[in-house]
Amino acid sequence: MSDATASRSLYWLRDNCPCAECRDPRNGQKLFQITDLPAELGIAAQTEQDGRLEVLWSDGHRSRYPLHWFAKPEQADAGDHRSEAGKRLWRAADFAAGIPEARWSDYLADPAERAAVLRAVQRLGFAVLREVPAVERQVLDVAASFGYVRQTNYGELFDVRVEPNPNNLAFTSVAISPHTDNPYRDPVPTLQLLHCLENAATGGDSGLVDGFQAAALLRTEAPADFEVLTRTLVPFVFRDRGTELRADRPLIETDPLGRIREVRFNNRSIGRLRLPAAELDAFYAAYRKFAAITLRPELQLEFRLDSGDCLIFDNVRLLHARTAFEPGGTSQTPEGAGGGRRHLQGCYADLDGLAATLAVLDRRAAALDRLQELFEGEGAAEYLGEAVTQAEHMLQAAALAQREGAPDHLVAAALLHDVGHFFDQHSQHAVTGRQLMEGQDNRHSHTGADRLARWFGPEVTEPVRLHVAAKRYLCAVEPAYRAGLSAASEYTLGVQGGPMSPEQAAAFAELPGAADAVAVRRWDDAAKVADADTPGFDHFRPLLAKLLG
Amino acid sequence: MSDATASRSLYWLRDNCPCAECRDPRNGQKLFQITDLPAELGIAAQTEQDGRLEVLWSDGHRSRYPLHWFAKPEQADAGDHRSEAGKRLWRAADFAAGIPEARWSDYLADPAERAAVLRAVQRLGFAVLREVPAVERQVLDVAASFGYVRQTNYGELFDVRVEPNPNNLAFTSVAISPHTDNPYRDPVPTLQLLHCLENAATGGDSGLVDGFQAAALLRTEAPADFEVLTRTLVPFVFRDRGTELRADRPLIETDPLGRIREVRFNNRSIGRLRLPAAELDAFYAAYRKFAAITLRPELQLEFRLDSGDCLIFDNVRLLHARTAFEPGGTSQTPEGAGGGRRHLQGCYADLDGLAATLAVLDRRAAALDRLQELFEGEGAAEYLGEAVTQAEHMLQAAALAQREGAPDHLVAAALLHDVGHFFDQHSQHAVTGRQLMEGQDNRHSHTGADRLARWFGPEVTEPVRLHVAAKRYLCAVEPAYRAGLSAASEYTLGVQGGPMSPEQAAAFAELPGAADAVAVRRWDDAAKVADADTPGFDHFRPLLAKLLG
Repeated sequence: MSDATASRSLYWLRDNCPCAECRDPRNGQKLFQITDLPAELGIAAQTEQDGRLEVLWSDGHRSRYPLHWFAKPEQADAGDHRSEAGKRLWRAADFAAGIPEARWSDYLADPAERAAVLRAVQRLGFAVLREVPAVERQVLDVAASFGYVRQTNYGELFDVRVEPNPNNLAFTSVAISPHTDNPYRDPVPTLQLLHCLENAATGGDSGLVDGFQAAALLRTEAPADFEVLTRTLVPFVFRDRGTELRADRPLIETDPLGRIREVRFNNRSIGRLRLPAAELDAFYAAYRKFAAITLRPELQLEFRLDSGDCLIFDNVRLLHARTAFEPGGTSQTPEGAGGGRRHLQGCYADLDGLAATLAVLDRRAAALDRLQELFEGEGAAEYLGEAVTQAEHMLQAAALAQREGAPDHLVAAALLHDVGHFFDQHSQHAVTGRQLMEGQDNRHSHTGADRLARWFGPEVTEPVRLHVAAKRYLCAVEPAYRAGLSAASEYTLGVQGGPMSPEQAAAFAELPGAADAVAVRRWDDAAKVADADTPGFDHFRPLLAKLLG
Repeated sequence: MSDATASRSLYWLRDNCPCAECRDPRNGQKLFQITDLPAELGIAAQTEQDGRLEVLWSDGHRSRYPLHWFAKPEQADAGDHRSEAGKRLWRAADFAAGIPEARWSDYLADPAERAAVLRAVQRLGFAVLREVPAVERQVLDVAASFGYVRQTNYGELFDVRVEPNPNNLAFTSVAISPHTDNPYRDPVPTLQLLHCLENAATGGDSGLVDGFQAAALLRTEAPADFEVLTRTLVPFVFRDRGTELRADRPLIETDPLGRIREVRFNNRSIGRLRLPAAELDAFYAAYRKFAAITLRPELQLEFRLDSGDCLIFDNVRLLHARTAFEPGGTSQTPEGAGGGRRHLQGCYADLDGLAATLAVLDRRAAALDRLQELFEGEGAAEYLGEAVTQAEHMLQAAALAQREGAPDHLVAAALLHDVGHFFDQHSQHAVTGRQLMEGQDNRHSHTGADRLARWFGPEVTEPVRLHVAAKRYLCAVEPAYRAGLSAASEYTLGVQGGPMSPEQAAAFAELPGAADAVAVRRWDDAAKVADADTPGFDHFRPLLAKLLG
């Protein structure tokens, strides 16, 4: 047994077999159950070559693993970014130069800006969007831009303003000290959004405290108290005429590795604990110590939400607060005598939707970076004896498409039609499961289309897939087309199987994307002009980004 | 210091002061922060009487506590019903006589039936609603009947049927062994609904396994393996073109008291664990043992969902499964050659909303029970020298209202107009915060209205509140009314302050509910007929239940 497998569990290895029989290539889901594996599992043979470990299992199954799987991880895994291991803990002074923020229009237009905002929420616990239209229900659009609204008994959204008959302190003008919302709910909403429609009040500023930082300080300064708060179940309760909620959770929740994972902090809704007096004393001493830490001035980040600002924050980490204000009239008496009106709309959402949106944005940015690398690296190489490099060829094809007013997806297909050449050389995965027609070297079109399918829809990938077949089609139906081929292209036509038969041509014309593939083909053929003035990859990047989004 | 406080933590006692200054009477939320309490808190004096402990604190605050708070709890608290302590663990044989189920129409019409279904989901983990209209999107109405839909990347709802290009095994016809859904989401949806629109397939039956039972068996049979599964973080992952989710959670999650709280079980989405080989071996051994337990025949509850059935189940406890079936065509080819079509619609929701709905239903049932007890107990007593008992008097008033075609809320007000007499005698709380007009004995109307406000809206409570004032009003504006009063009523008129002055009468007529109060008053006056044939409390209970709902 090699070092690679000697240091790995057999069931782990088999459970992670990446073959298409074991794992759905579309979504990576495993296609077997752990109990399907034999009770006596062994390795019959194994070899290592080309950066891969190939294993023949005792039950006859074959698996291939990339060897880099067996390298030691370089650093602690931030994992799912839910525990403190995936966060950057902060104090107010860390934002002396400004808080994480972006203009709503930039956030919408620029995926990088959007990713930066969402990453701030994930790692720091909050971000502020500015210049969000100050109209009712807009907060729901903000939530929908990265995730899903969590509806509660307060409704889809809630209004934070002075109410004549409030069922919650939030709907008064008194100061509210740092707390998390809805600890009596389980699962508790992990994100909160507060969108300021109007804030003409004197006072009514916002405050945030990093609850993970406060918990970490408690752990350092009073480890026994920290322990008490992680293991004491606190009954959080809320009750009015229409609802009655209760959740028994610790103030500080740690994961099985002991890492801080969630903080709940809200004296308003702590119910009556039923424990022996000694445990109550220990709990209240620890709770008061923790509460005092959350009030330390160096932890209080204060800022003001003005009309159009939307604060997004982690409700299982950050405590939020509000200073008192002079109410300028309630929702029933819109014109106040003293002070100005203050009106926020809020809603709840969840971290998992935000994390998924961020992961997809990151994946797409990485895809664009990878394509850009290809154009600027390997793509600069000679192109089968043509007068242009491969990158110039593809950029020219895209420029031609754009000049003719082609829709974005065809500009992209023209730009990317030959990327299969690069992936073929570098891919660790063979082209699988797809029948290549005998004797036809159109492998690069399929390789390219398959790889692009991770990022783009069929409107981009299918013209790429069919662009070699389109050449054979055109040679069959347009004699003049064949006459115009470059010498290199005429040469490869033979390798690719020659012109289609009339039956093949008729079948091709029926395929979805055939017309688009023919269009791409014509730009492909025309894009071999030496020293043409062609825009670089950067020019097309926003267009590609839009198609990815 | 008395025994009561000697055995209790001072801060606990003070944090739970029930006075209106410390706690909002509307929703029970505390109006102070734990850090507001003095660092040196002491008791200056205390007395016990009338079942209450009165404490004078060192900072001058006064608190009163019911002494029953200090009794030892009789049994272990089921708490928030989320851990195994709040569940009934089961095996398939426990449902030999049938599974928890109800007809949709009964569930809608009868609060007791609704509570039984929701309690089954909370305690057993599932229930089936029958004869739910087999129409698209109906599953969302089922979810809305007790809680809130949790939207995900699958949408608001998802279709479970054979798809031509599935992104998930659920959308094929293969067998799916017991699993929980969406373990890669955090927070994971705690409830799932599956509504069967059509099931003409051969096969395609449903299975459920109590994951808490399986985990409890593992704990008994292999405690070390149970420990391993509670402390190993498993990366659950799901990724397709539009999303990328990851959650690192243990297969078996315990609460800080070590009680089983959530189970996640889904080999399809377990990603690559990165741990030392010895830990991987330990994990896989424990995981395989747990998996084998979930497949034990005695744990497999099997049944068939037919058109109109809607299964509601706890997705952090129960594992659900599906047998293979012969697909009768996909959504794109509706007419299948072999087998029949199978089409379910599902959605996710959360346990907290369900628990709140159940708690409110229970609270309302308890309120009706309490009112019924009053009518059948104390209400049977003599009524201030009238010819009827107090209960007969109120029942007669309600019957009169009903005979005149009064709306439900006025029938209820007539029925309940004098309940303050009973609460006055038994209430542990004095009437607080409300100005009683000098010299007017209308206390019972306020007591009744305040107590009823826990359960009913102002359309019921305000006529009750004003029914004594309405008598003084009528005596002022209708000489004939006063002439018709019974001797006892004429006597109490004096105690109550006599007829209103013209100014008082004009002010009264302006009050919201004044006209309703006058109507109630007239039924009140007429409802003193000896031996009248009057329906009992049972007759009015459904009407009250509707007003509570």
